[in-house]
Amino acid sequence: MSEEFDFIAWIRSQQRASDSVPVPAGDDLAVLKWKSDDLLLVGTDQVLDGVHFDSKVHPPRAIGRKVMNRNLSDCAAMACLPVAAVATVALPRGISMDYAKELYLGMKEAADVFRCEIVGGDTAAWDGKLVATVSIIGRSDGIQPVRRSGARPGDLICVTGELGGSLLGRHMIFTPHVFEARAMASTGLITSMIDISDGLSRDLRQICNESRVGAVIRAAEIPVHEDAIEMRRDGRTPLEHALHDGEDHERLFTASSLEWIKAWQQLQPLQGFKVTEIGTITAEPGIFLEHGGQRTPLEPKGWEHTF
Amino acid sequence: MSEEFDFIAWIRSQQRASDSVPVPAGDDLAVLKWKSDDLLLVGTDQVLDGVHFDSKVHPPRAIGRKVMNRNLSDCAAMACLPVAAVATVALPRGISMDYAKELYLGMKEAADVFRCEIVGGDTAAWDGKLVATVSIIGRSDGIQPVRRSGARPGDLICVTGELGGSLLGRHMIFTPHVFEARAMASTGLITSMIDISDGLSRDLRQICNESRVGAVIRAAEIPVHEDAIEMRRDGRTPLEHALHDGEDHERLFTASSLEWIKAWQQLQPLQGFKVTEIGTITAEPGIFLEHGGQRTPLEPKGWEHTF
Repeated sequence: MSEEFDFIAWIRSQQRASDSVPVPAGDDLAVLKWKSDDLLLVGTDQVLDGVHFDSKVHPPRAIGRKVMNRNLSDCAAMACLPVAAVATVALPRGISMDYAKELYLGMKEAADVFRCEIVGGDTAAWDGKLVATVSIIGRSDGIQPVRRSGARPGDLICVTGELGGSLLGRHMIFTPHVFEARAMASTGLITSMIDISDGLSRDLRQICNESRVGAVIRAAEIPVHEDAIEMRRDGRTPLEHALHDGEDHERLFTASSLEWIKAWQQLQPLQGFKVTEIGTITAEPGIFLEHGGQRTPLEPKGWEHTF
Repeated sequence: MSEEFDFIAWIRSQQRASDSVPVPAGDDLAVLKWKSDDLLLVGTDQVLDGVHFDSKVHPPRAIGRKVMNRNLSDCAAMACLPVAAVATVALPRGISMDYAKELYLGMKEAADVFRCEIVGGDTAAWDGKLVATVSIIGRSDGIQPVRRSGARPGDLICVTGELGGSLLGRHMIFTPHVFEARAMASTGLITSMIDISDGLSRDLRQICNESRVGAVIRAAEIPVHEDAIEMRRDGRTPLEHALHDGEDHERLFTASSLEWIKAWQQLQPLQGFKVTEIGTITAEPGIFLEHGGQRTPLEPKGWEHTF
């Protein structure tokens, strides 16, 4: 038996059949029971060595956690409950089985927070660098999925947490606030939501494009992370970092009324989870930044992916 | 806008919301409606440049088709209907948008055969080689999933198609016989099934291990593909190729009675789909090959994955 089969046997030893997953990993496909009337949500995200992490710096457990958390953060953005995940890894030839196990344990650690089960996968060795991919299945479980397309003129624009400078380390250790997002969505006052992965300026544009609206945000109210201040050494201002840096993995959302904040503040378990109002959705197209009494068009300069 | 966003916009232009997929690709996650009482099946497979294909030889459309067909072949092995897929690609930096589109169209072409929709994905560029990953969701739709664990002593062992030598090209162009597998499973006489991806000897072992049984197969009855004969130039016999080569992507299955063959032959749409009985499941553990009047243990020598 080659090492891959040992690895698969080890993964399987971590899993059990259950009522909701009658066939876990180990067959050609896993089998899940599905509750009727529950919407199914599905998506996928990958991490690549040298792009989303650096294998010379980041330990495999942190890499595994990140790829799972990217997917869980998408669940938060849609306000769904993560249920099951499948994972693939392309492992550089010669890598140890312990390394592969650590990758898996990182994924599992992140998924376990939400009792999301890893029910399948595929591993292969190659001459290339490390790639890890996770696909996730979530369920609506009584809360209507929050899309990017529901923002309406007059809605408040809000963000969770603080933005900018995630490259200093936060991009590896962010927390997907699934329960908080679902609590927010359950108020019925959240009209649109997106995971901030490409940078605030770019992801706000996604919401505006999908909702066919415009936006004005106020520079003075954008919650700037101290990492963004630290990063000003590169010549860009902390505000620029907060506006354009990628991989914050916070939520950008719009709300139809301030009432949601009151409802919010009464939700005990969410203490310490920061929400800031930063602007307003407009009927006129265009995205603008109010800064020092001036209103200028906000160009998307987020995380650029180019081939 | 960078090219990736153009590419995503292009993919979205190929998709429409429908009754069963109210939110297609383009949000943080896709949203699917699910029929109550339908079991959900899920799995994932990747293809890596230099391992599962050679980008210097194989065009992107063929690579896209292969990664989707690997997943569809898993659906065939479980006798489920493919419903939706999500895909990630890690693209070597500098690759053209046309190349990326061809990859997607290859995936779509394969999925369209079963009206399976690609509902989400993730693309990124990097300094590494091409990786494509697909995760698939299937539904049982009235046919109980066929597992690896149901083989019983006395069952017939059968394979579809012909085996061996897929490396000569068939590994890129195999057909996932989903409808045929479902027709077989609907007879209620198929007790276990697996996709032959790691080689007959290794995949038969999976069925025997999962079912806690043994097996005897007869060398003279194994359907050897002409590619396996062609490949004898490498010093291994055609039989060895048929027994041990990987990526046949045919079905190995066990059946509780010969009656299924009769039922089978009456199924008009399945003409041209070959099934061969090659042996018998035994109560005694161990996997044996009958060859020239001799019975010898059959060691797994399939497609070896090593880190």
